[in-house]
Amino acid sequence: MTGFADLGYARVDTDREDRQGLPEIVYGPGKQPDEIVGIVSELLRRSTGPVLVTRVDPEVAEHVAERVDGAVHHPAARLLTWRPAPAGTFEVCVVTAGTADGPVAAEAEAVAAAIGLSTRLVRDVGVAGIHRLLAVREDLARADAVIVVAGMEAALASAVGGLVGSPVVAVPTSTGYGAALDGVTALLSMMTSCAAGLTVVNIDSGFSAAMAVHRLARTAARPR
Amino acid sequence: MTGFADLGYARVDTDREDRQGLPEIVYGPGKQPDEIVGIVSELLRRSTGPVLVTRVDPEVAEHVAERVDGAVHHPAARLLTWRPAPAGTFEVCVVTAGTADGPVAAEAEAVAAAIGLSTRLVRDVGVAGIHRLLAVREDLARADAVIVVAGMEAALASAVGGLVGSPVVAVPTSTGYGAALDGVTALLSMMTSCAAGLTVVNIDSGFSAAMAVHRLARTAARPR
Amino acid sequence: MTGFADLGYARVDTDREDRQGLPEIVYGPGKQPDEIVGIVSELLRRSTGPVLVTRVDPEVAEHVAERVDGAVHHPAARLLTWRPAPAGTFEVCVVTAGTADGPVAAEAEAVAAAIGLSTRLVRDVGVAGIHRLLAVREDLARADAVIVVAGMEAALASAVGGLVGSPVVAVPTSTGYGAALDGVTALLSMMTSCAAGLTVVNIDSGFSAAMAVHRLARTAARPR
Amino acid sequence: MTGFADLGYARVDTDREDRQGLPEIVYGPGKQPDEIVGIVSELLRRSTGPVLVTRVDPEVAEHVAERVDGAVHHPAARLLTWRPAPAGTFEVCVVTAGTADGPVAAEAEAVAAAIGLSTRLVRDVGVAGIHRLLAVREDLARADAVIVVAGMEAALASAVGGLVGSPVVAVPTSTGYGAALDGVTALLSMMTSCAAGLTVVNIDSGFSAAMAVHRLARTAARPR
Amino acid sequence: MTGFADLGYARVDTDREDRQGLPEIVYGPGKQPDEIVGIVSELLRRSTGPVLVTRVDPEVAEHVAERVDGAVHHPAARLLTWRPAPAGTFEVCVVTAGTADGPVAAEAEAVAAAIGLSTRLVRDVGVAGIHRLLAVREDLARADAVIVVAGMEAALASAVGGLVGSPVVAVPTSTGYGAALDGVTALLSMMTSCAAGLTVVNIDSGFSAAMAVHRLARTAARPR
Amino acid sequence: MTGFADLGYARVDTDREDRQGLPEIVYGPGKQPDEIVGIVSELLRRSTGPVLVTRVDPEVAEHVAERVDGAVHHPAARLLTWRPAPAGTFEVCVVTAGTADGPVAAEAEAVAAAIGLSTRLVRDVGVAGIHRLLAVREDLARADAVIVVAGMEAALASAVGGLVGSPVVAVPTSTGYGAALDGVTALLSMMTSCAAGLTVVNIDSGFSAAMAVHRLARTAARPR
Amino acid sequence: MTGFADLGYARVDTDREDRQGLPEIVYGPGKQPDEIVGIVSELLRRSTGPVLVTRVDPEVAEHVAERVDGAVHHPAARLLTWRPAPAGTFEVCVVTAGTADGPVAAEAEAVAAAIGLSTRLVRDVGVAGIHRLLAVREDLARADAVIVVAGMEAALASAVGGLVGSPVVAVPTSTGYGAALDGVTALLSMMTSCAAGLTVVNIDSGFSAAMAVHRLARTAARPR
Amino acid sequence: MTGFADLGYARVDTDREDRQGLPEIVYGPGKQPDEIVGIVSELLRRSTGPVLVTRVDPEVAEHVAERVDGAVHHPAARLLTWRPAPAGTFEVCVVTAGTADGPVAAEAEAVAAAIGLSTRLVRDVGVAGIHRLLAVREDLARADAVIVVAGMEAALASAVGGLVGSPVVAVPTSTGYGAALDGVTALLSMMTSCAAGLTVVNIDSGFSAAMAVHRLARTAARPR
Repeated sequence: MTGFADLGYARVDTDREDRQGLPEIVYGPGKQPDEIVGIVSELLRRSTGPVLVTRVDPEVAEHVAERVDGAVHHPAARLLTWRPAPAGTFEVCVVTAGTADGPVAAEAEAVAAAIGLSTRLVRDVGVAGIHRLLAVREDLARADAVIVVAGMEAALASAVGGLVGSPVVAVPTSTGYGAALDGVTALLSMMTSCAAGLTVVNIDSGFSAAMAVHRLARTAARPR
Repeated sequence: MTGFADLGYARVDTDREDRQGLPEIVYGPGKQPDEIVGIVSELLRRSTGPVLVTRVDPEVAEHVAERVDGAVHHPAARLLTWRPAPAGTFEVCVVTAGTADGPVAAEAEAVAAAIGLSTRLVRDVGVAGIHRLLAVREDLARADAVIVVAGMEAALASAVGGLVGSPVVAVPTSTGYGAALDGVTALLSMMTSCAAGLTVVNIDSGFSAAMAVHRLARTAARPR
Repeated sequence: MTGFADLGYARVDTDREDRQGLPEIVYGPGKQPDEIVGIVSELLRRSTGPVLVTRVDPEVAEHVAERVDGAVHHPAARLLTWRPAPAGTFEVCVVTAGTADGPVAAEAEAVAAAIGLSTRLVRDVGVAGIHRLLAVREDLARADAVIVVAGMEAALASAVGGLVGSPVVAVPTSTGYGAALDGVTALLSMMTSCAAGLTVVNIDSGFSAAMAVHRLARTAARPR
Repeated sequence: MTGFADLGYARVDTDREDRQGLPEIVYGPGKQPDEIVGIVSELLRRSTGPVLVTRVDPEVAEHVAERVDGAVHHPAARLLTWRPAPAGTFEVCVVTAGTADGPVAAEAEAVAAAIGLSTRLVRDVGVAGIHRLLAVREDLARADAVIVVAGMEAALASAVGGLVGSPVVAVPTSTGYGAALDGVTALLSMMTSCAAGLTVVNIDSGFSAAMAVHRLARTAARPR
Repeated sequence: MTGFADLGYARVDTDREDRQGLPEIVYGPGKQPDEIVGIVSELLRRSTGPVLVTRVDPEVAEHVAERVDGAVHHPAARLLTWRPAPAGTFEVCVVTAGTADGPVAAEAEAVAAAIGLSTRLVRDVGVAGIHRLLAVREDLARADAVIVVAGMEAALASAVGGLVGSPVVAVPTSTGYGAALDGVTALLSMMTSCAAGLTVVNIDSGFSAAMAVHRLARTAARPR
Repeated sequence: MTGFADLGYARVDTDREDRQGLPEIVYGPGKQPDEIVGIVSELLRRSTGPVLVTRVDPEVAEHVAERVDGAVHHPAARLLTWRPAPAGTFEVCVVTAGTADGPVAAEAEAVAAAIGLSTRLVRDVGVAGIHRLLAVREDLARADAVIVVAGMEAALASAVGGLVGSPVVAVPTSTGYGAALDGVTALLSMMTSCAAGLTVVNIDSGFSAAMAVHRLARTAARPR
Repeated sequence: MTGFADLGYARVDTDREDRQGLPEIVYGPGKQPDEIVGIVSELLRRSTGPVLVTRVDPEVAEHVAERVDGAVHHPAARLLTWRPAPAGTFEVCVVTAGTADGPVAAEAEAVAAAIGLSTRLVRDVGVAGIHRLLAVREDLARADAVIVVAGMEAALASAVGGLVGSPVVAVPTSTGYGAALDGVTALLSMMTSCAAGLTVVNIDSGFSAAMAVHRLARTAARPR
Repeated sequence: MTGFADLGYARVDTDREDRQGLPEIVYGPGKQPDEIVGIVSELLRRSTGPVLVTRVDPEVAEHVAERVDGAVHHPAARLLTWRPAPAGTFEVCVVTAGTADGPVAAEAEAVAAAIGLSTRLVRDVGVAGIHRLLAVREDLARADAVIVVAGMEAALASAVGGLVGSPVVAVPTSTGYGAALDGVTALLSMMTSCAAGLTVVNIDSGFSAAMAVHRLARTAARPR
């Protein structure tokens, strides 16, 4: 574990693909567009897997895409990708409580797809009309893992957690106002779910949820 | 609106029965046992309805009950009552997410019963096994109002709120640990429920929920 | 309980009118204008009661109103309505502590009116001049329910709660600055009111208060 | 401004009586009983005014009182006093919202009396029965300053602040549970009162309120 | 205590001048400019003392000043005044910790001056160079009351509180960043000052501090 | 999904073994010992897998173990088990930052073992001496999943997350004092880890971490 | 300790160079550009060391630099300097966790350089790829002090603290989102580091860290 | 950097003396007494410098001291030491705001002394009587570093920071009540001090402050 490329403004972890099965993923905010160009170019040169930049604004995306061949921009997910992995056999289902949770779900789904997971999106099945959730129960149970994207009180996470036996990764969103506290309420709610074995990632981080499932898929792919 | 009795240590609001249909209810903590004796005696003398003392420890309850005739002690609810009202036609259903929410539900039910509401208790229908809730759906829908008692992430409140069309009063409880934050998480969660028209009272306050339903029942009883 | 319409971007709960006496109400933020058009059209087709969209910006409102006949826009309340219900016999009084609480009160009143409640608005009766409140005491007592809209320390909720015996739904507002903490102080204050039986909804949610009263009115309308 | 006595374990500010009209007041917690004995003895020797120790437990109080002549113990106020000042012409009225606020009010009143203020105590006039407060309105208006002691939502502070034109010092108390957050809610509420010109001291600090009034009385006593 | 003028959008408390020695002061935010015009006109007609509007933006100030004769605009203080009171004998000294606390101090001073207090402003005496404070010690001690305006850790309040024996009203400001938490740190710090008898008002509220001193001055002016 | 057993004090979810591969696990706190006896007996009768009671005090454990045959008590883990599953091929490694995190790690390990996971415990490899962690790097990388148990600033979670490519479930503990805020700091820290794809469970919940791994193992066991 | 210059809008502490080895450093926000001109001019006249203005916007910087000769503007650090001190023998190494922490590190480095410290910057060595940190371990150990700049969970501070034996000043940054809470999580994390003897300064305050090292360097320069 | 001793229950970092100049220091809480015996014995065997156990209760201290020769128990500091280092030339002055801060100061002083720093203790110089602080100004300025121990609003830290030019390590304490929030207010206050270059450690951690000074002394001792 010694490889990295020192670009001055960044130390690109070129060893990560060996350790974790994916090249380092670039977090866009706070980086100059040309720094992103440099890092992405280095990653494409020094690794073989998919290369991703998250949370990019449209202008930055355009700037980078013009300078590094092969870019695909996913605007709803604020994501840039190169060399996406082919879809594998591990299937993740992304479920949202409401329409306003869409952008976070889009990030989760686009990142998951780019790193080789099979994805499925089920929208707007919040518990205020629980029959909408029960109607997709079989689909959820069939998935290898479920990502629940929900804001406000995030009750959907508990409901899904109680219905399925596979891993559930809960993403609190900043949807809502007042006592929703910019997603803190959803985070605390998911943390204290009565459904055992739920796990939680950071507020609005569809990216983290996809990466958590990536880790699962790696373990599931081990010969057993 | 001028009546009160000045006992020195307390100003008993003897006008309240006229304004709100019930004598003032005595909050036990922070009062000397003999002060409670004095206040209760005054209330029994100056009003005609039920008289209640909430959150009393067993020793205090015994001390007071020995000195003021007609007391009934409800230890699980930490409640003392005199002259309970006969059960009326307004039915409230008290629902709990788990067994640990029991003491708060007991307070809600005992206060509700003492002030003349018909009560029904449904325990342990948390959303981790949502079919347990669906099994009692008709019972809930039939009630004139529902009190939901839940701690941790309190997802039950949203689930009930989505199932029934009658008033739902949500009581967050301090059940749980860590991120449950002594009931604050449940409170915030209930506040931001995706089920429209839920209302919330203070953490662990079964008393407040019963009193909220008392107000409902008064309005429902008006000729229309 | 099985009906919903899957529009892809939303699952419209077409069963809700049966369960709760009102079609699903559309929460505007986070939805594309054309998604709102689609959902509203579906609701108008599949239900018979009033259809509402809350928290809409003027441009969105105009876009939608041009495409779905019969819309009425209530700009102060940020509300769009279709097929408003005729005013019923259940009267709710909306009371504000100060002029700055006006927009939240407007939402409460407009939603309440659209779903068939009789409404009355009393403005600017904060406790800094308590005689202004006492002057309207009879009006408040006559109402079937009272919605108290107040920010800052929200003392008005306790004062009203002590004066009337009917249901009081308290709406904390984000009025104020500094220690008002964007409405959290008002929320906590209302939660711990010394007036028994007050219930509380989310910060700035006039909508939730109106829906809570809708539930009350449904129960009050039951034959008894 | 140079005087102090270095006792090793404490530097007694012997200059304070000159600066502020009162010897340093001893905060009991965290001090050894014999350290209190030493400090009090020094203060009695080096100053001429009243000497006070606040927040003393009964055992500590007894230990100190046995060793320093002239002590008076006020157990409800957890206070020890020596050489109390005669009652002056400045009158402060201490008002409580409920019986549970009693100990804090007792501290405010006992400290105020010991340092030469005329005091009056009015108990249990919380706004849930506002007529109890209106009944003492003239008494409050007559006082030179009012100390309001209230927990929970502390609405009494705003109500009093709106009724009188003299200085109002608000003391939040830790009375209440759940969302009362050990007095933080009362503190925030008093801070954001709609009644202009209220000032606030620390939670449960009857002592601070009395000292704030001491400062007022000094200024009021200046020839003008 | 019965007088008020019902303008529809506001209930002007015309009794307040009798109760508190000053007409109601108008809080600008959340009011339409023409509503302010109406309220101010009513106050000028129904009372005799100074009339103030706080926290007005320049455009609103201009709009109102053009329509109500006699207005003076204090832009640094965001204040409009009519009929300012002549300077009385009660002197308040406004002290700031740093230059960034200037706008809050300006509000405190301008309001104080408009309601008839004599004012003095001492700027930039924060404790990082304590000799700057000691240099003005006599000036502070001479004042009838001191308003301390400080953000960040607000240590100046304790230092001043220890130096003078007259009333000290502390105003936390939102100056600072990070752990300053928009003034909450300053507020908590002032609340727990080791200097006894300090009182605190809301974050950034120079207005509240001036009004607190107004109350003091009223009491100090009573014959004794 | 319809099965449950209504014991009055509890509705035992007898369907859960089908849905999730394990009988319902009993949360001990807030239940009467005899209620636990009843629930455990029912679960043993109605299911075939391991039965567990978590967070039991020694006296309760003894009471229950005497009445239900086959109990094993794990005092360090506060756990009671019946019919533990044989160890499977899925290996989880439980890592702690310090000795004080031991009880939470014990719960994680004992629950994991009882439900059929192979477990390994590595203690005291906090980042203050990072070479201790690097020394076990291969062991961690070999495991199918890693549970990181850490309090205070919880930096171990990020370090482990960066070293291994398999799923990492982070358990914040309440170890530490002051700014550790009873585990909240560790929770927030783990939530915002720079190591992508970490997931987090509730403070001190070794149980939740084990259950999260149970879900992983189920998915990994699916034919692929 | 008596010197200061009263400019009316500011009291410049001209004694500080004697006390602390550096002239007062000017905090830019909240000051008028011409006030900065005045203060800087006074400092240049009354002292001999470097003069700095922190957190200046480009326009303000230009305005001031045009009016006071000898200014150097460091835009990335938002810093203006005059008469920078020559680099001394005390070497500080500034280390960042990620690229987004760059501006805070730039401020730390530029202030440190201007006041006479030797500086070195090491970027992007966050613990997600710990080998990048280990690769610079010797460089860190050689420095006389290390400033660690990190946001999110700030695990880098603990890792560095465990590797080196020299002083480590940790600067939490507001990098990150959601549970990062604008730097509060990083602050709490650094406060509770398992690496003994770390110290922490305010969020995003590269300036404070540099000044802390200035104090160290002064002490280290004392003859011993 | 490879040395550690694996005792099963602990991995003793035997390399630390090389890296940081001191053997690992043992944190007492959460360890069994015999585990402490084992770790201390190992440290004495594998290193040459002072060995310390912090935060030990008297019973644990006695148990360990009986089993490991050469122990010295410092009860006020809750500290056990073996092989204390001789006092060096680096002098640290520990200053407290009040008597109640004594135990934290005792820990700071005892740890500092045991690891070879020269110490001096100055008690009770809080800013409520600032002349007490000014009287020791020369002593503070002479010290190589100052540890300020203060609770409540912790204004002493800013005052000391402004007076001296040497390193100031601030320790917030949990002294105080109400808004002191168990030391959080002091922590935030110290973090936002107007005195530049102050650094802060965890609440009540005299240990951390002493260790921070140890790092300073190491750097100061380097040949320059």
